[in-house]
Amino acid sequence: MDETRSGLPSVARAILLFSRFPGVGRKSAQRMVQHLLRRGRTEIDMLVDALGELRDKVRPCARCFNLAEEELCWICADPRRDPTTLCVLEETSDLLAMEKAGSFQGVYHVLGGRLSPLDGIGPEQLHIAPLCTRLRAGNVAELIIATNPTVEGEATAHYIVQISQPLVGRITRLACGLPMGGELEYMDESTLHQALAGRRAF
Amino acid sequence: MDETRSGLPSVARAILLFSRFPGVGRKSAQRMVQHLLRRGRTEIDMLVDALGELRDKVRPCARCFNLAEEELCWICADPRRDPTTLCVLEETSDLLAMEKAGSFQGVYHVLGGRLSPLDGIGPEQLHIAPLCTRLRAGNVAELIIATNPTVEGEATAHYIVQISQPLVGRITRLACGLPMGGELEYMDESTLHQALAGRRAF
Repeated sequence: MDETRSGLPSVARAILLFSRFPGVGRKSAQRMVQHLLRRGRTEIDMLVDALGELRDKVRPCARCFNLAEEELCWICADPRRDPTTLCVLEETSDLLAMEKAGSFQGVYHVLGGRLSPLDGIGPEQLHIAPLCTRLRAGNVAELIIATNPTVEGEATAHYIVQISQPLVGRITRLACGLPMGGELEYMDESTLHQALAGRRAF
Repeated sequence: MDETRSGLPSVARAILLFSRFPGVGRKSAQRMVQHLLRRGRTEIDMLVDALGELRDKVRPCARCFNLAEEELCWICADPRRDPTTLCVLEETSDLLAMEKAGSFQGVYHVLGGRLSPLDGIGPEQLHIAPLCTRLRAGNVAELIIATNPTVEGEATAHYIVQISQPLVGRITRLACGLPMGGELEYMDESTLHQALAGRRAF
């Protein structure tokens, strides 16, 4: 469905928009549009409805910047969560991965990215000021830093440690080491280095 | 964004619909929805618009079953195309691939699939009756069969040859053999068989 050849502007436009999704190339976008045309009106109607809801209902949680449909997200609104343990992460997708693991009972703060000066992302572009406000309120006992173990994630972690040290008693970070089910043979050097450095007594 | 955990029905619904696209798994659907939420209202509006247009404007060409926005598609409506050479293919995507190659000046007929008795797809489920009507009109000199070189595509080709033999003077099919740029080393046996059987004099 090449725009110029197909002579169907509506099809070309849909393909163009679909190919803007991450990981979706031109071929996949074509297949997606053809899938919709094959499935017909009802399928497209459902998608249009769903997108409208997404646009109109979803907003950032006023407290932690997780996705929400109300003022607070389902975690901040849950009285069973422990508000004295605060876990800082880069993105909502990281939060969802943590929730899927199911072993964290505290609350979160989503930064909305990581420090990346080359891309023009400094502390002001992230939700760091609201994090300080939350810490200053004084009821956080432990701040768990769960940025990604990448160069930028580490830089972000260090920045947060610096500014939150005066504001909270205990700052920890997620352990780095061998992923469960991984094999030493296939681990990169820095992971092995971390695993050795962080070794624990049996 | 697990439906049950996220507590955001709108997000869960959008993910579910996106994961129904071919080749889009749950993870990719999540990433697509997050991309939309990150890009915001304007991006979603554009997509909703484009989908509405797709639903309201696109229909099958009344003559060849290609995608069209008018009664006839851009090929059937083009007076420069040669209506005496008719190429039969399975899907619109095949037609678009042929058009991209740019070496065919005739017209098409899109079957809308291939014969597949196990999936309940017989001749009645394909646009074979309209093909016969076109051939009976008598101005097609050559019928080029361009179904895919798969078991089902071959069966479809044979069926079409049988029913169109009384209706058209010349029936041909696309050559099978080595794809350009391919290496013999990596070709399967049946492709090599076809390439040898169809060898041509220098």
